Amino acid sequence: MQNITIAAVSTRNRLGQPIDALADMRAWTEKAVRQGAELVLFPELNVTGYIQHAAARQWAEPIPGPSTRQVIQLARDMGVILSCGILEREEDRFYCTHILANGSGLIGKQRKIHTPVQEQPYWGFGGSIEVFDIGKIKVGITICRDSFFDEMTRTLFMKGAELVLMPFGYYNVPRSRYLKETIHGMSIQKACWTNGFFALVCDSAEDRAPNEWEENGAKFPGWAGVIDPWGSPLVFVERDGNGEAMVVQGISAEVLQNRRNHPNFLAAELRPELYQWTQASSETSDPGLIHLRRHFSIPRPMPT
Amino acid sequence: MQNITIAAVSTRNRLGQPIDALADMRAWTEKAVRQGAELVLFPELNVTGYIQHAAARQWAEPIPGPSTRQVIQLARDMGVILSCGILEREEDRFYCTHILANGSGLIGKQRKIHTPVQEQPYWGFGGSIEVFDIGKIKVGITICRDSFFDEMTRTLFMKGAELVLMPFGYYNVPRSRYLKETIHGMSIQKACWTNGFFALVCDSAEDRAPNEWEENGAKFPGWAGVIDPWGSPLVFVERDGNGEAMVVQGISAEVLQNRRNHPNFLAAELRPELYQWTQASSETSDPGLIHLRRHFSIPRPMPT
Repeated sequence: MQNITIAAVSTRNRLGQPIDALADMRAWTEKAVRQGAELVLFPELNVTGYIQHAAARQWAEPIPGPSTRQVIQLARDMGVILSCGILEREEDRFYCTHILANGSGLIGKQRKIHTPVQEQPYWGFGGSIEVFDIGKIKVGITICRDSFFDEMTRTLFMKGAELVLMPFGYYNVPRSRYLKETIHGMSIQKACWTNGFFALVCDSAEDRAPNEWEENGAKFPGWAGVIDPWGSPLVFVERDGNGEAMVVQGISAEVLQNRRNHPNFLAAELRPELYQWTQASSETSDPGLIHLRRHFSIPRPMPT
Repeated sequence: MQNITIAAVSTRNRLGQPIDALADMRAWTEKAVRQGAELVLFPELNVTGYIQHAAARQWAEPIPGPSTRQVIQLARDMGVILSCGILEREEDRFYCTHILANGSGLIGKQRKIHTPVQEQPYWGFGGSIEVFDIGKIKVGITICRDSFFDEMTRTLFMKGAELVLMPFGYYNVPRSRYLKETIHGMSIQKACWTNGFFALVCDSAEDRAPNEWEENGAKFPGWAGVIDPWGSPLVFVERDGNGEAMVVQGISAEVLQNRRNHPNFLAAELRPELYQWTQASSETSDPGLIHLRRHFSIPRPMPT
């Protein structure tokens, strides 16, 4: 890792209006770059729109596809790395995907791994967890609740992640209470502390009226921030409201090294030979899921 | 699981005075049982005394041994299950151990798994992670920082734990700030939420003057509490001070079932086929440690 300046933006979440969403991205990216940002993160599905409805599929695109090309162009114009969310279509399958691009092209993409039950009718489960070396730092991506799965954040650490991008599309959590008072906020801080990486987080900002697909509309609280490898927020938007917001923050390689070299850095003291997970996983081809779903009698579709 | 009433006591931490420590336990157990407690937890090494010094070894005992027999007698007299901490000697090896006993005898013991570097000169690493069925509920034990290792708490869940006993011997964290403002407190709440178990926690209570083994003495803040399977504290000692304290709390089987049957219960949605941990662990006989220690160049003794 080298020192780098990163930004996260809580943008509006427009449904099926990628041209307008990309224009939002351009305006925010200009502001971020003027403040020195070398990488800018946008929320889950910010290009396509986030909606728990089959209508979403009509707006899906291949990756790379039209919106990806626009993002690459924007990255080229601004000389910056961008990460944003697109509902991905691949043949007849759909994924909630976040891309990472610079002016030369698509660096990579991460599909949402732990798709919740309320999204499963509309898009599927990602099939691999990736870490991308962008030169100054190695980057992983968790999409929304992926960040709460200890095994996923540990996997990103094991694959070398020094920074995890955490885009969200979360309803109804007042941002002033998010980090200190919600189990989700605690979870992000714990993941950083236990794995010694930085997290760059942002949620959508939208107060959407009831519409043809959403009986109650949608209300995203619009927070953004950076958590350091000790689990401490370096910056976080906490004032009330759910308007758009941006954070720009320099992060230090020395801080990461100090955390990972601390005598009590947990990830260096694991005892894998003792953990049940390892044993359970070696027994059958898909043992964890089979074990868990049998144990809890959860009648849910298997990932595809 | 069936409904059960549990108690945790933050007791004094006496160095090498097991008779007095056992008398403390008797006094507190009487109070707890009068309030309906069926299981009472005491802090890390409360019988032997917690000290980071070779002197501790002179006070170590086999398990079962003299103190274990006293604890069984106390459990028999009070008709209760007890869990307390004894520095264990087995031949020429030493362990930081927590026992679980009822009036019929020793139910089991758990040795500390993730012994920190500052304790490693004096006692070793436990070699197995156990869950004990005590009739009404299945119980695991994490000793102090063991509770912060996601793999250990997940292992306890995978082995069936519905309640995790978390005895601590932690210095210098004001108890009024512990749960909300420290990464350790957040970590405990996250472990309960992500695994859907209850946690019964207590730290030592002691304000020990400098002495022949501790240049600066020791100051344990003396908190105790119960966290539910949603990660929410049911009861927690938060008033300032570091005096002794006790919590007694009924816990509900229905709450645990509701958490584990929630559509978004994370542990039921794991994707073990994708996690790096599994892959790394299948490569060599002790791969995780070798991998991690090579990666971070940590010159530390291997567990024995």
